Amino acid sequence: MLRSAPFFPTTVEDYRKIVDDYDTWLFDCDGVIWRGGTPIEGAADVLRFLRSKGKRIIFVTNNPTHSRAAFKKRFAAMGVEASVDEIFSSAYASAVYISSVMKLPKDKKVYVVGMQGIEEELREQGIAVCGGTDPSDNTLESVDEPAVDPSVGAVLFSWDGSINYTKLSKAFQYLTRNPKCAFLCSDEDLTYPVEDGVLFLGTGALTATIRYALGRDPVCFGKPSKTMFECIEAKHKINPATTIMVGDRLDSDMAFGKNGGVATMLVLSGLACLADISDTSPVISDFVTGALTDFGVLRSP
Amino acid sequence: MLRSAPFFPTTVEDYRKIVDDYDTWLFDCDGVIWRGGTPIEGAADVLRFLRSKGKRIIFVTNNPTHSRAAFKKRFAAMGVEASVDEIFSSAYASAVYISSVMKLPKDKKVYVVGMQGIEEELREQGIAVCGGTDPSDNTLESVDEPAVDPSVGAVLFSWDGSINYTKLSKAFQYLTRNPKCAFLCSDEDLTYPVEDGVLFLGTGALTATIRYALGRDPVCFGKPSKTMFECIEAKHKINPATTIMVGDRLDSDMAFGKNGGVATMLVLSGLACLADISDTSPVISDFVTGALTDFGVLRSP
Repeated sequence: MLRSAPFFPTTVEDYRKIVDDYDTWLFDCDGVIWRGGTPIEGAADVLRFLRSKGKRIIFVTNNPTHSRAAFKKRFAAMGVEASVDEIFSSAYASAVYISSVMKLPKDKKVYVVGMQGIEEELREQGIAVCGGTDPSDNTLESVDEPAVDPSVGAVLFSWDGSINYTKLSKAFQYLTRNPKCAFLCSDEDLTYPVEDGVLFLGTGALTATIRYALGRDPVCFGKPSKTMFECIEAKHKINPATTIMVGDRLDSDMAFGKNGGVATMLVLSGLACLADISDTSPVISDFVTGALTDFGVLRSP
Repeated sequence: MLRSAPFFPTTVEDYRKIVDDYDTWLFDCDGVIWRGGTPIEGAADVLRFLRSKGKRIIFVTNNPTHSRAAFKKRFAAMGVEASVDEIFSSAYASAVYISSVMKLPKDKKVYVVGMQGIEEELREQGIAVCGGTDPSDNTLESVDEPAVDPSVGAVLFSWDGSINYTKLSKAFQYLTRNPKCAFLCSDEDLTYPVEDGVLFLGTGALTATIRYALGRDPVCFGKPSKTMFECIEAKHKINPATTIMVGDRLDSDMAFGKNGGVATMLVLSGLACLADISDTSPVISDFVTGALTDFGVLRSP
């Protein structure tokens, strides 16, 4: 169900038809269910309502800093029930790609630029990691001559609040000195929203350092890449005709839905605003609504 | 004197004619006079020979980490005599641009991503700085909500071995929250050579984070930008017809010479090799020689 211009549901019947038409609901989290550290009002109630109608719910997030186990706790803190199997993060997609798609040999390691969560996901898939949270890589003393470990077969970039010259430099040395070393990136988000419309630098911005110095594009896993979709399909049978992707970003969430051939709904509770939707915008969603809580009309008497 | 293909001097007469034709010699340093921390054999002798012939010598370096005073000491350690007025670095060019070209108001500050040397050059031109080597900006604890100082009127990126999320984040906040804040960059070098053909990440790679997240190009000062040339011309009368730029990089040194309308000589003792010079390469120098020491033939009996 692809339209050339989005449909704006307004009546109870409009919302009921959307709920009736789709069995599988893929949800972005930040800007849809919470914003920064604060739950979005009514979102948890709508998720409970959808579950009560027998809908399958899957959470799809580009945030690579938490493991799925940590995400489950975060969901609980936001008043949202979720199982680990319902959570697909860019960190998990990275781990699935490395172990199942590129099939990195068992004697090779991944040099990680990133936080504990992505390390945990990689280790859970049996992948050996270095860098990341290793204290010797987390220093502001820049390394003059970074030792290059010949067992590193891939460099994986993700968001890293402790980014430093040592990690950037080691990543660059692995990639320049060994042309066979894979260049991977958990997600391409240049920014991510925090409270009050403020944007912080995302994985895509940190990766730009190496990307432009190398003149080489990484293989990326987060939305809108199809890899994330393949990761979901490996775990759940998806019927695109009855699946809908709900998110707050045109370039990431809506493009991801289009790439996966499913319906898309843009919510305006996050990054995108009404002005971003025009006939000339490169990605138009099938539906647009203010926020998830708009589905609350279905629970009214 | 621009040629469509470079001239390779081979005889004593060829070298003598070059020395006779040019009164002002602009020199890149790394890859020409030294390589990493090691002097290039014979380079200091050739510089002394040129001085003995009454040639004016000016050093033009994109390395933004040292003040000119610190460079003078470095030259001395490499056995090369140099006065502060002969040294033009991208840090100095940045300071001259901010104080004399953009004329940053005296009540405005520059947020620096960079090392002590560039801070010193800015302060010497009477410019107030923040960030840089300030201990509170040099931490691996990432800042959740960076305070934005309304007196910051420009963000200046340069090479920073203590690059971290705090500095990147503050720079990004200044530039996104205040559209009037100037985005400046000491130099665009994506990499710089250290020993044994190893490349390290340069200012251009670090700046790519903000550049791509903002979708905005910085104003850049180092070679090949014309700003560096204007900076030299503000201090020395330059006659392009009798000036030659000597360097080891096509994209930086040779392009800088072409942009300034002076003759250019590529030395192969640094980054560029013979294979980089072809009829299709975007920048071709007027002359090519192996190393500065080739001029040593003129001192032989």
